[in-house]
Amino acid sequence: MQIESLPTERRSDKPQGERRGLVIIHTGDGKGKSTAAFGLALRAHGRDKPVKIYQFMKVPSARFGEHRAFEQLGVPIEGLGDGFSWKSRDIEHSAQLARDGWQRAEATIRAGAHFLVVLDEIMYPLRYGWLPLEPVLTCLRERPESVHVVLTGRGAPRELIDLADTVTEMTMIKHHFKAGVPAQRGIED
Amino acid sequence: MQIESLPTERRSDKPQGERRGLVIIHTGDGKGKSTAAFGLALRAHGRDKPVKIYQFMKVPSARFGEHRAFEQLGVPIEGLGDGFSWKSRDIEHSAQLARDGWQRAEATIRAGAHFLVVLDEIMYPLRYGWLPLEPVLTCLRERPESVHVVLTGRGAPRELIDLADTVTEMTMIKHHFKAGVPAQRGIED
Repeated sequence: MQIESLPTERRSDKPQGERRGLVIIHTGDGKGKSTAAFGLALRAHGRDKPVKIYQFMKVPSARFGEHRAFEQLGVPIEGLGDGFSWKSRDIEHSAQLARDGWQRAEATIRAGAHFLVVLDEIMYPLRYGWLPLEPVLTCLRERPESVHVVLTGRGAPRELIDLADTVTEMTMIKHHFKAGVPAQRGIED
Repeated sequence: MQIESLPTERRSDKPQGERRGLVIIHTGDGKGKSTAAFGLALRAHGRDKPVKIYQFMKVPSARFGEHRAFEQLGVPIEGLGDGFSWKSRDIEHSAQLARDGWQRAEATIRAGAHFLVVLDEIMYPLRYGWLPLEPVLTCLRERPESVHVVLTGRGAPRELIDLADTVTEMTMIKHHFKAGVPAQRGIED
């Protein structure tokens, strides 16, 4: 029995010591980057902490399962994008939406009224060059120290990883899409 | 602009085609295995699907943020363990609880009344030898085809990975514990 191999993600009943906001990154090509961010938002909400979720690649009208559940909880989740995909005609419009969305997200982070701010799929506008990296780094460095920020998406830039407190890479070992099984409602949307 | 590099975790607005339950594994030494499972439970609940969460390493009285939030949503989350840790005196008792808990989880999976059943941290009793692997594999193979099952924890056994539809490894790139920052209430519990 490997009783010494205690799960290090084990959580204390009574966290003690330094209290400060963390910068948490979920990156990699596997599943679970956004869903783990939603789980963090759920947990913080359960502790009566104010949470705000911005989604850079979802449209404002998105009504996936998570939107419906967060609505039930009273957790605001806001799509900032235009449903950008490989079919998009107007990349400049997508880029402008990302910049406008960032202004909103930055204001929320700097205001310090939220315990946790999720910047879901922000890596895509950063990678696509729609959003410059430097203002994001500056905002994270200058934010009120109580504010936790979770950033998700593939291909997190090195400077963001250097700045972050906690970085997890979600690696795809197997995926049902590759076995020909399509997206399942309630699991993937 | 890498507009060709569409996120493959992108979800269709209208999933089509084969509908069947998936076996999904979150493993690895990084954060996010359980929180991503909670995110999936949240999403499924948002689609009005019945969800049940079993936690093999949590006590029935656990009241972390996720328990409070799932209570608000009406999603049952049940601790099956005795808070096993390196301080545990009675390993045999922990092992018996895991076996008893598995009986309950297996009955729920086989009954087929739930869209999604989460077996959180089940890898630990499997690795510790508290729970034999074969009955778990058999239950997953024989389950009603509509039932999705998510299993979490480090060190997923090879046979389970072979059987699964989707496997994600959460890899720790950086962790604030290692920088001396302790667990933060609302983030880690």
